[in-house]
Amino acid sequence: MSAPDTAGALDGVIVLDLGQIYAGPYCTHLLRAMGATVIKIEPFGGEPIRWRSAGDVAGAAFLMLNAGKQGLRLDLKKPEGRELLLELARTADVLVENFADGVMERLDLGWDTLHTVAPRLVLASGRAFGDHPAAAGLRGMDVTVQAIAGVVTTTGPADGPPSKAGPAVVDFATGTHLAAAVLAALYQRERTGRGQHVEVAMQDAILPALTSNIAGYLEADGDFPERTGNRHGGLAVCPYNIYPALDGWIAILCLRPRHWTALCDLMDRPDLARDPALASPAGRVRDMDRIDDDVTRWTEQATTAWLFGRLQEADIPAAPVRSLGEVITDPILRDRGMLTEVGDGDRAATVLGSPVRMSASRPRPAAPAPLLGEDSADVLRERLGLTDADLDRLRRDEVI
Amino acid sequence: MSAPDTAGALDGVIVLDLGQIYAGPYCTHLLRAMGATVIKIEPFGGEPIRWRSAGDVAGAAFLMLNAGKQGLRLDLKKPEGRELLLELARTADVLVENFADGVMERLDLGWDTLHTVAPRLVLASGRAFGDHPAAAGLRGMDVTVQAIAGVVTTTGPADGPPSKAGPAVVDFATGTHLAAAVLAALYQRERTGRGQHVEVAMQDAILPALTSNIAGYLEADGDFPERTGNRHGGLAVCPYNIYPALDGWIAILCLRPRHWTALCDLMDRPDLARDPALASPAGRVRDMDRIDDDVTRWTEQATTAWLFGRLQEADIPAAPVRSLGEVITDPILRDRGMLTEVGDGDRAATVLGSPVRMSASRPRPAAPAPLLGEDSADVLRERLGLTDADLDRLRRDEVI
Repeated sequence: MSAPDTAGALDGVIVLDLGQIYAGPYCTHLLRAMGATVIKIEPFGGEPIRWRSAGDVAGAAFLMLNAGKQGLRLDLKKPEGRELLLELARTADVLVENFADGVMERLDLGWDTLHTVAPRLVLASGRAFGDHPAAAGLRGMDVTVQAIAGVVTTTGPADGPPSKAGPAVVDFATGTHLAAAVLAALYQRERTGRGQHVEVAMQDAILPALTSNIAGYLEADGDFPERTGNRHGGLAVCPYNIYPALDGWIAILCLRPRHWTALCDLMDRPDLARDPALASPAGRVRDMDRIDDDVTRWTEQATTAWLFGRLQEADIPAAPVRSLGEVITDPILRDRGMLTEVGDGDRAATVLGSPVRMSASRPRPAAPAPLLGEDSADVLRERLGLTDADLDRLRRDEVI
Repeated sequence: MSAPDTAGALDGVIVLDLGQIYAGPYCTHLLRAMGATVIKIEPFGGEPIRWRSAGDVAGAAFLMLNAGKQGLRLDLKKPEGRELLLELARTADVLVENFADGVMERLDLGWDTLHTVAPRLVLASGRAFGDHPAAAGLRGMDVTVQAIAGVVTTTGPADGPPSKAGPAVVDFATGTHLAAAVLAALYQRERTGRGQHVEVAMQDAILPALTSNIAGYLEADGDFPERTGNRHGGLAVCPYNIYPALDGWIAILCLRPRHWTALCDLMDRPDLARDPALASPAGRVRDMDRIDDDVTRWTEQATTAWLFGRLQEADIPAAPVRSLGEVITDPILRDRGMLTEVGDGDRAATVLGSPVRMSASRPRPAAPAPLLGEDSADVLRERLGLTDADLDRLRRDEVI
């Protein structure tokens, strides 16, 4: 892609971030990378993942996700704190929150209130199951939604217990959809001049990722294994597995006929390539166990590096299973700025980049996450015109 | 959320969809639900997942993801097919593709060409590792990127082999980020009047979901288990696990101190609530094995329904592990339109809804996925003014 030569896509867009843990903060992380100014608003104790469980040191997850945001400490339970939020909302474009159901209403900061006070504001809400009578009061966190929405039952060995996905796939799917929702609402506002309320439910956000699994289930009319181990979720592609190597594991799949014939060549198994029972995708699926055994006999005699090299040359989709240590030092991820070191001394931290690359939107430079309330005075002075005396009083009253 | 009372956010936006399998088609699925008109362009054989492996019947995954799109069959390798695509690009707003590296350039449809011909067009590209010299020619599919980017090493039992996540989390993370990228580019175009090239790499798109795992690794300076089974990815929260019940499994986590004391009450274990060693989050993390054993002794004597009811009443985050069959008949997902039945007879299909809810954007009604080339004539007549004679000739020359 050509070098960015203009400003950011969201230059001038002001985002109030009441997000916590992953979904909300990741949404605003994406918006910030596109050029938005993000004001992270936290209660006096900081948001739930600000501190490590061991004490008052900032947690690495918090630092990764909140880089470059401004930090405002604000007690929304105090009338004056709520009033300040509404004043900020009047001057802002977007407010992002992923509180539990009903929290915004209890703070008297529901959509009707916000829309009346700030008609151009886009309110973005991350929820567990969304606005639905049967979901009222139902809590959701990444792992519980993984369980209830089908991620856990489809993950793990076919003959063993169910497993969660290691990464927080539900929280991040929610945050990403929420960013798309905000952007669609900003685009629509260009025509209507008005904001709207956008909502993403965690359960909805992860469901589409189960398309293979659901399709397999529907095609087999329910006569279908819940978990398929490392095989294709719909049991519709073979070879498709993670095979043992001398020094680790390697994922290999043959989506197209030419991948299968190339793999037979590599394995020096013309008998398989010629076997009429294995000539069609459906035939290979029927003989899955035999094929996986044959591929395993080949992979287990070689290193992942050797296998990966040969498979790449043959243009067969494959990759070694890398460790976390290998991932976070990967030169491609590093060069693309997906993980960067910023700050000095106490403020030194590893921060995330953005997966969204835009040829005409300059990415915002990385900067450390804010200390709790670090920018409170600056934000209120610049955005609401508060004086030093106002700020002193708000501090004394423990509003900021 | 109040009832939608206006048009769609993307009304009037025309999207050309060269997407295949999941990432590209899911991106355009999201854009269609927001009001865009999506023209799905397929080669003569159909896109890779159009047909079931068993024959020429449309696959359920294809039907789920391509509902309500228009179907155009077009041979881009023929000069006239390419020319028609460029003419369509002149009248369109967005072109989405997730081909392997270099395919668009080989078709002479690279960014420079498209931008010259159609300066307002946004080109959205899904890639495996993105534009990087070391990634040139590297293939990526969902499971291989899960392997190389850290999903597989972090999924599965702590003492067992690595596992992929059951759902296609990489493909869908890519598609969702790509939709956000398109929307940001459309928003920026309101100011600049010009399109741009946006890109999302699969490896980048899934990395943020590993925030917990990477943070745990960084905080422990690398002295950290790759996989934590069903425990917290950063081993920073306890209780946090999927516990056995009489009739299945239940996920429970205690993020806040009050969750822990409420769980001790439910289990009728005042000794645990009073134990000073377990009073702090860090203390509970240190005694993880003991706590998990105690919780298991409680859960394994009850049904998931009973446990879920008690835990909900006590406001402790929890959920049963549901089967795929339970998920796809879930009343909340059904009422929210996340899965709907559309069409009659041969065209009957289950289709996905969109996780993005917008109070002022009416969702597009569901409709069956197009047959291969179903709308070829209509699209070319309406958008490019082709005559019946033109269309006959193009059919005869196997361009459409």
